[in-house]
Amino acid sequence: MTRELLIEQIRIKKSFLCIGLDSEYEKLPPHLFQNADPVFEFNKQIIESTHDLAVAYKPNLAFYESRGVAGWQSLEKTVRYLRRNYPEIFTIADAKRGDIGNTSLQYAKAFLDDESGLGFDAVTVAPYMGSDSVQPFMSYPEKWAIVLALTSNKGAVDFQLQPMESGLSLWQTALTECASWGTPENMMFVVGATQDSMFKKVRELVPNHFLLVPGVGAQGGSLEQVVMHGRNHEIGLIINASRSIIFASGGVDFASQARREASQMQQAMQALI
Amino acid sequence: MTRELLIEQIRIKKSFLCIGLDSEYEKLPPHLFQNADPVFEFNKQIIESTHDLAVAYKPNLAFYESRGVAGWQSLEKTVRYLRRNYPEIFTIADAKRGDIGNTSLQYAKAFLDDESGLGFDAVTVAPYMGSDSVQPFMSYPEKWAIVLALTSNKGAVDFQLQPMESGLSLWQTALTECASWGTPENMMFVVGATQDSMFKKVRELVPNHFLLVPGVGAQGGSLEQVVMHGRNHEIGLIINASRSIIFASGGVDFASQARREASQMQQAMQALI
Repeated sequence: MTRELLIEQIRIKKSFLCIGLDSEYEKLPPHLFQNADPVFEFNKQIIESTHDLAVAYKPNLAFYESRGVAGWQSLEKTVRYLRRNYPEIFTIADAKRGDIGNTSLQYAKAFLDDESGLGFDAVTVAPYMGSDSVQPFMSYPEKWAIVLALTSNKGAVDFQLQPMESGLSLWQTALTECASWGTPENMMFVVGATQDSMFKKVRELVPNHFLLVPGVGAQGGSLEQVVMHGRNHEIGLIINASRSIIFASGGVDFASQARREASQMQQAMQALI
Repeated sequence: MTRELLIEQIRIKKSFLCIGLDSEYEKLPPHLFQNADPVFEFNKQIIESTHDLAVAYKPNLAFYESRGVAGWQSLEKTVRYLRRNYPEIFTIADAKRGDIGNTSLQYAKAFLDDESGLGFDAVTVAPYMGSDSVQPFMSYPEKWAIVLALTSNKGAVDFQLQPMESGLSLWQTALTECASWGTPENMMFVVGATQDSMFKKVRELVPNHFLLVPGVGAQGGSLEQVVMHGRNHEIGLIINASRSIIFASGGVDFASQARREASQMQQAMQALI
């Protein structure tokens, strides 16, 4: 998907919400286990119930890989369902990949290739291994690398927040260096909502890039703070919520309760736009 | 697998060779495509032909994920074949994973769990997200996190070799910090063979940990240099070669040619022990 189409969708839906499909098997509503593929059924009903409120969906690969072949089947069905029924939705493989060039190219093929792969619009990428580990994810037209800059977990302090000799933190160094390998048309950055005091610094370094922001919801980040400090003139934010939406209820009303949560977030976003 | 058993296997086989199963579909010998699962057939014949020369096998996940469900089936069959027939072999999922705690726990389950997962002995892990992204991989007894420290690719210079305010490079900081989260019984580090001048510095920081060393073979690293500077009193090295062994021949003699290459490496290792 192009940047222009994504921006248009944000304008149409008055939303920059991404719904994280961290569809943990053990947490699914019990009544879904009568289906042959409960994870796909869960995702499908979540999508049906929320697609007008969200501009993106983000399956978290770990929750699919932990179920092996069956998990990959659920993942494939989910992304195909999205592509077929809602081609205007931006799809993100939250995979945190990154390896030497020829290996990253295989991961890019796995997640981004429309023919032989899953055909996602974007993959999240870890920057530790440097340029040749990131660049293959930008080798497909209209596809995106979403590079980790400053994450929402407590471990962010261990390396990302540590100062380099230059005076910048590692995350600032990573952000600046990675930004030089791509453009705002094929690269985004992950910046956690729990780091809201940092968004001003992020925008000094990358005024034009989209930021994918996890950590609102279950992890406690503030939507208002993120938007205040992190938005640019095109919004430039995709804010993710996973558990707080998809597991708003663990019962037969899970889809309607997910819609209620997503709707609250969409309305809060509309008020902030 | 325990550290003691791994050390014993190195002593018995006079080898610290790991064979990387980067089993790229497009590069398989043409005659294998008559099999229902050419990738598994390839891996099985490579393993049959080399298992007495290697102490470890390391499937590279990208080459399986790029084939989706079919790829995961090949991967599952391969690791089950290894566990059933050669339980003395150390198995490494080269996956470069790492995410927030609850997500890393799902990846650990996917790769390390003997019941619900693939039952590998170890997973490679990217350290960028810090402690809670790494620790879940050490939550299974006798299983290992193999953390990226200094990799063999050219992108290593972008971040890993950059100096921190402390005067240490990022890779030295990562090595030291990560080592404090585990022990030489459940953690190893990736140090690329193309960085052979750095092994002395690595050993100053982690004298007792095993190092997983890619980059000998197709990437051009020197076995002699790595062993000279990187070994400790228990060897403490697992040296990986992938393409130079498994694709030594692209014809019907691929398995015997792989054995010839592996045997040359084993003999060179034996001479260096």
